[in-house]
Amino acid sequence: MEFSQVLEQRRAVDYFDPDRPVDSKLIRQMVEKAALAPSSFNLQPWNLIIVNDPQKKAALQKAAWNQPKITQAPVIFIVLADRGGWKKGHPVMEKTFSQMVAAGLPKEKYDWFADACSSLYGASADRQMAFACKNAGFFAMALMLAAKDLGLDTHPMDGFELDKVRNLFSIPDNYWIPLLLAVGYFDKSKSLAPPKWRKTVDEIVVSF
Amino acid sequence: MEFSQVLEQRRAVDYFDPDRPVDSKLIRQMVEKAALAPSSFNLQPWNLIIVNDPQKKAALQKAAWNQPKITQAPVIFIVLADRGGWKKGHPVMEKTFSQMVAAGLPKEKYDWFADACSSLYGASADRQMAFACKNAGFFAMALMLAAKDLGLDTHPMDGFELDKVRNLFSIPDNYWIPLLLAVGYFDKSKSLAPPKWRKTVDEIVVSF
Repeated sequence: MEFSQVLEQRRAVDYFDPDRPVDSKLIRQMVEKAALAPSSFNLQPWNLIIVNDPQKKAALQKAAWNQPKITQAPVIFIVLADRGGWKKGHPVMEKTFSQMVAAGLPKEKYDWFADACSSLYGASADRQMAFACKNAGFFAMALMLAAKDLGLDTHPMDGFELDKVRNLFSIPDNYWIPLLLAVGYFDKSKSLAPPKWRKTVDEIVVSF
Repeated sequence: MEFSQVLEQRRAVDYFDPDRPVDSKLIRQMVEKAALAPSSFNLQPWNLIIVNDPQKKAALQKAAWNQPKITQAPVIFIVLADRGGWKKGHPVMEKTFSQMVAAGLPKEKYDWFADACSSLYGASADRQMAFACKNAGFFAMALMLAAKDLGLDTHPMDGFELDKVRNLFSIPDNYWIPLLLAVGYFDKSKSLAPPKWRKTVDEIVVSF
């Protein structure tokens, strides 16, 4: 699809067709495409738990304000933002450095790289959260657009109890859960609400 | 452009052509398109400061590890994530509620809406930061892709001293600065490094 169409046709759909499963190949393609999103020092501090088992979805729904979308949509992504993704010894951090070395960076720069990661992304709880959630935001936006391009519909969801979801899926503390993402096909027997308002360019651009 | 091409051709370019300015109409189109990004309860907690004045760019460069991109790129966006964008009385929060009422929600639901915003996004410093940065991440990803679709190149930058940038542009405390985004045209006299590695689907999808 044309990029502009993808952008305009992506909508947070409220109703999913419960009788129309999503081919697992499409899910893989969606994730593979979204993985092209950029990230801070290429640290890619994002992961996904893919929930498609009906019992697990039912339990997740209870932890998510009982929203029917959770069980209606064939697939729910639990999007995870890794607050520790900048640390020395983290496999992605180490691989990113080794790839920089392969591309010509002197090995001796390791301390510089580790210190930069640590000061920008690890120096406070605020910085760890900002790092994790901004990058997971890049990835999740790319997921939603990639889904639309593949003919799928999505709905990003915030209405859930984070600790309950953490406990249900034994999610380690280094992860924040910035959103759940319902994935499936819009239920065409329902009507889609008109698009919500958006700020204008002049409302977005500010100076102080 | 085709969506897949936009996704694949978006690169964080290291060299911008300093002699090729960006038409202000393109900048507006880029922001207007990216404004279609979804957000938590449609609160759109993002703003931009657009920096194109050479003196201001030079000052910004000093606060950003002296990275030459800042003065080479014709335009720098300072992306702002509003940690207070969920509060009662915030103009976007109030407008979003009034639009929900216009779409059929009973006015009496105001307290429910305000309480939901406050508990999900305001209940702790962590939640405020996660809210602001995740949504600004959606918006920034959409900005980068919209730029590519318009023939522009970008580079998202984290290497800056947040407090210095805050002071230089008198940015209020409610805003976190998740990134600077350089916007312009790739300097074709330079060569673009090969794309960096990405995690595979199997490295992204986890269970515990």
